[in-house]
Amino acid sequence: MKELKYCYKYPHPAVATDCVIFGFDGMSIKVLLIQRGIEPYKGQWALPGGFVGIDESAEECARRELQEETGLAGVSVEQFHTFSDINRDPRERVISIAYYALVKLSEVRGGDDASKAQWFSYNDIPSLAFDHDCILRMALRHLRDRICFEPVGFDLLPDVFTMTELQRLYEAILGVKFDRRNFYNKMLKLEVLTSAEPRPENASRRTPSKYRFNAEKYAELKQRGFRLEF
Amino acid sequence: MKELKYCYKYPHPAVATDCVIFGFDGMSIKVLLIQRGIEPYKGQWALPGGFVGIDESAEECARRELQEETGLAGVSVEQFHTFSDINRDPRERVISIAYYALVKLSEVRGGDDASKAQWFSYNDIPSLAFDHDCILRMALRHLRDRICFEPVGFDLLPDVFTMTELQRLYEAILGVKFDRRNFYNKMLKLEVLTSAEPRPENASRRTPSKYRFNAEKYAELKQRGFRLEF
Repeated sequence: MKELKYCYKYPHPAVATDCVIFGFDGMSIKVLLIQRGIEPYKGQWALPGGFVGIDESAEECARRELQEETGLAGVSVEQFHTFSDINRDPRERVISIAYYALVKLSEVRGGDDASKAQWFSYNDIPSLAFDHDCILRMALRHLRDRICFEPVGFDLLPDVFTMTELQRLYEAILGVKFDRRNFYNKMLKLEVLTSAEPRPENASRRTPSKYRFNAEKYAELKQRGFRLEF
Repeated sequence: MKELKYCYKYPHPAVATDCVIFGFDGMSIKVLLIQRGIEPYKGQWALPGGFVGIDESAEECARRELQEETGLAGVSVEQFHTFSDINRDPRERVISIAYYALVKLSEVRGGDDASKAQWFSYNDIPSLAFDHDCILRMALRHLRDRICFEPVGFDLLPDVFTMTELQRLYEAILGVKFDRRNFYNKMLKLEVLTSAEPRPENASRRTPSKYRFNAEKYAELKQRGFRLEF
């Protein structure tokens, strides 16, 4: 057993980070989970994460653990809440700083390190280790709050997408159904979509138009302040 | 010197909380600071806060420290960010979970414990200890983001207020000037204000009407989703 060689005048909690990684498969919101290889909760699914090293910031820790455990590199993670209930970990007092990220499914390639990482539909999440169900629910709440003011949803779609895909994404995140024409008009009115390609002249009326997210227009919009109203 | 009797296999950071307490004096945003009595930064102004006890949650710690250092009790604090830069405290690695709260100035009574607590105008903050200027700036950013979607501003006003007071509050938080008539119309249109009292029959045109915040109307509005547009 390793020596207890780090000593302090007062008890210190351990500090960890946990990451909620959201994806979208065209129909439902997905969450990336890892299967725990060690106790406690050995064999159970959990959010990727781990202890903060004494020489790294929490965000550095989150990105490092994410890469080690899921193979995901270079992801932009956003801190949303710190969980500090005194009994949330049976080993010792552990405070967890939670991050979330939105990734395109196409960018995730499982590596050797990631053999135990797997996507689950948000509506079909297994029983999670620790208080990770609580962390996950709060992450979704943050995503819901943000999607009405920021185009975070576009981070979950492929670069080129149809209006139907965009509508399904908003429906999946917000847990509601929209009227097709209404959604279409509201999105176009925002002027943050650009046609992805000239429509082929021989396109039938049933060929859906393809769009890209227009980051420049969005930046303008954000300056003015806006809200997607549904 | 106290014994170093709490020992761990891996180095553990200390964890603290810091509180940004906002008030409003009718003209400008105020921040409650305390003067440090010990090193490091002895004599300098800082946010109220302190180390998280091993048997309390971060929120419990924030409320306890706030009461001990400023006399403020029963304040509803909201977590907004955790600061984890490795060199933010010269003593040891300290991670700080930051909270903010909005209080009515009339509710703050300095006690003996609070002898070193003092309100400063946001535009006239002295040089702060640690990274507290950074924590304070982020707290104001959160307040600005929230005030457009939630009636947080009303927590800073007396129960009964004039439209001019409300306008000055929004101007102080957002750092802009509004057209008086425009602001008035937008606020009335939101329907979250109620007349505080029947207008005296002999009131001159110059006697300002008094309002209260209507929490019930606001709850309705929030269900529908809204944004104050300026």
